[in-house]
Amino acid sequence: MNQTQIFKQIASFWNNDMPFNQLLGLQIKHFDTLQSEVRFLWQDKLIGNPIQKILHGGVTASVLDLAGGVVAAANIIDQLDDLSPENIQYNLRKLSTIDLRTDFLRPGKGQEFIATARIIRSGSKVAVARMELHNEQNDHIAFGTGTYMVG
Amino acid sequence: MNQTQIFKQIASFWNNDMPFNQLLGLQIKHFDTLQSEVRFLWQDKLIGNPIQKILHGGVTASVLDLAGGVVAAANIIDQLDDLSPENIQYNLRKLSTIDLRTDFLRPGKGQEFIATARIIRSGSKVAVARMELHNEQNDHIAFGTGTYMVG
Amino acid sequence: MNQTQIFKQIASFWNNDMPFNQLLGLQIKHFDTLQSEVRFLWQDKLIGNPIQKILHGGVTASVLDLAGGVVAAANIIDQLDDLSPENIQYNLRKLSTIDLRTDFLRPGKGQEFIATARIIRSGSKVAVARMELHNEQNDHIAFGTGTYMVG
Amino acid sequence: MNQTQIFKQIASFWNNDMPFNQLLGLQIKHFDTLQSEVRFLWQDKLIGNPIQKILHGGVTASVLDLAGGVVAAANIIDQLDDLSPENIQYNLRKLSTIDLRTDFLRPGKGQEFIATARIIRSGSKVAVARMELHNEQNDHIAFGTGTYMVG
Repeated sequence: MNQTQIFKQIASFWNNDMPFNQLLGLQIKHFDTLQSEVRFLWQDKLIGNPIQKILHGGVTASVLDLAGGVVAAANIIDQLDDLSPENIQYNLRKLSTIDLRTDFLRPGKGQEFIATARIIRSGSKVAVARMELHNEQNDHIAFGTGTYMVG
Repeated sequence: MNQTQIFKQIASFWNNDMPFNQLLGLQIKHFDTLQSEVRFLWQDKLIGNPIQKILHGGVTASVLDLAGGVVAAANIIDQLDDLSPENIQYNLRKLSTIDLRTDFLRPGKGQEFIATARIIRSGSKVAVARMELHNEQNDHIAFGTGTYMVG
Repeated sequence: MNQTQIFKQIASFWNNDMPFNQLLGLQIKHFDTLQSEVRFLWQDKLIGNPIQKILHGGVTASVLDLAGGVVAAANIIDQLDDLSPENIQYNLRKLSTIDLRTDFLRPGKGQEFIATARIIRSGSKVAVARMELHNEQNDHIAFGTGTYMVG
Repeated sequence: MNQTQIFKQIASFWNNDMPFNQLLGLQIKHFDTLQSEVRFLWQDKLIGNPIQKILHGGVTASVLDLAGGVVAAANIIDQLDDLSPENIQYNLRKLSTIDLRTDFLRPGKGQEFIATARIIRSGSKVAVARMELHNEQNDHIAFGTGTYMVG
């Protein structure tokens, strides 16, 4: 498998076998070493404010963390010579979020939400990504910065 | 109703009528103008890493945001002269998270998780709280800082 | 005076009468309600690491805070009807940094440094800006997010 | 030299040969693998707001970064078997701030300022510290969280 195929397989695994991503309906649409896109649809169970009917802040943090995390994962894999499933799985165990800042810019209203991430620091040990959340009308709902352990 | 009764009523409302809190099983145990405690039990649907069986980072961010948010809510109410339900509800609409930093210190493993918040800045417009997440064995899993709009 | 003239006067005041900005040699080149640019030259006294000869992290935080702060100031002024010096000065007293996150991406090396800010949330009470620091060779040295009180 | 003597020597070097620390008058009073204390006196050149005569936010960020950084340095040294000056210097080169969040809680007024740091995550690659700034009257001026590369 080449890198593109591996990334697709990982997206599929995280979309279908990661319980909390499934609970929220988060779908990784694309990721590589530079950027990613994760989408999800409005569901009433994601409401954090029953009066105003807006997303819970934790939903926003969850999707930003995932969007940045898959870019960090791509950077782990990009450093590997041996692309066997065993070696990939072994090295992905190193992936963890060190810290995450979420800036809530506008109320989380919409029918579909699109999170995008872009790498801003890529190293052998630590990667940093910045993320944005928009709705289907391109309202800029949130901004985030995530620091990830990658080695 | 006095302030303590009002706080209890709000905790009950947020525990029972806030869809995302219920989805995650978050239970506000106590809050006032200075501090709060929110608890939840391990559930497999909260897993963010199927291999290592640890909490999704978004679950951690969600509970820290809630723990800080209720302390911010208490500070809104503490500034009111008129404690009628209408006035409380009107003023609680001002509450929103401006930004949230989450530091992931240890893997999110455990049977029960306890989030605590403590106010560190209390103003008429903005409140800042710092939060901690521990498991039932008192392992320090995460640390957070939240800035909230309160006026 | 119109808004552009007022912004120039404020830049001049902050460049020439703000002791710490002068100590570091920070020069606001331009700012409006959407963005800003602040520059400074390398000086040995700004060294934070005598072996590697790189900027102290506090220098980076200082210039990012200033770059975001002037955009926040512009947003305060933009909300005023009365543009008399007294009213401007009175309202600028409300300006303060609530919190600032700085991400250090690359070593702070260079001859000249350029900080830019862009507003990402503009409200009557709170403004949020994101900032970048580059050197004269366009190396991306740091990234930042600042939350400011504006009302 | 034992560890305590090494820490004293590093404090002396950073106090006396780090240009930006000297410019601001930052004095490391004590540090070990768990905590640190850094002090500095008010000086007019540290003013960030000439009307209100308060510390520039960058001064606050600088001293918090230093307070956390020395605790991170202690954690680097604590992992070493070979405590020769060459090996210590070689390993301290790995020290860098990854990110720093500063929460400005009260105006930076006072005659003397005391920054303290406490480690909250200690690992072979990344350390996290949280910091506080008080003045001589024990007013809590700022709070911070810093993530450091240590390996």
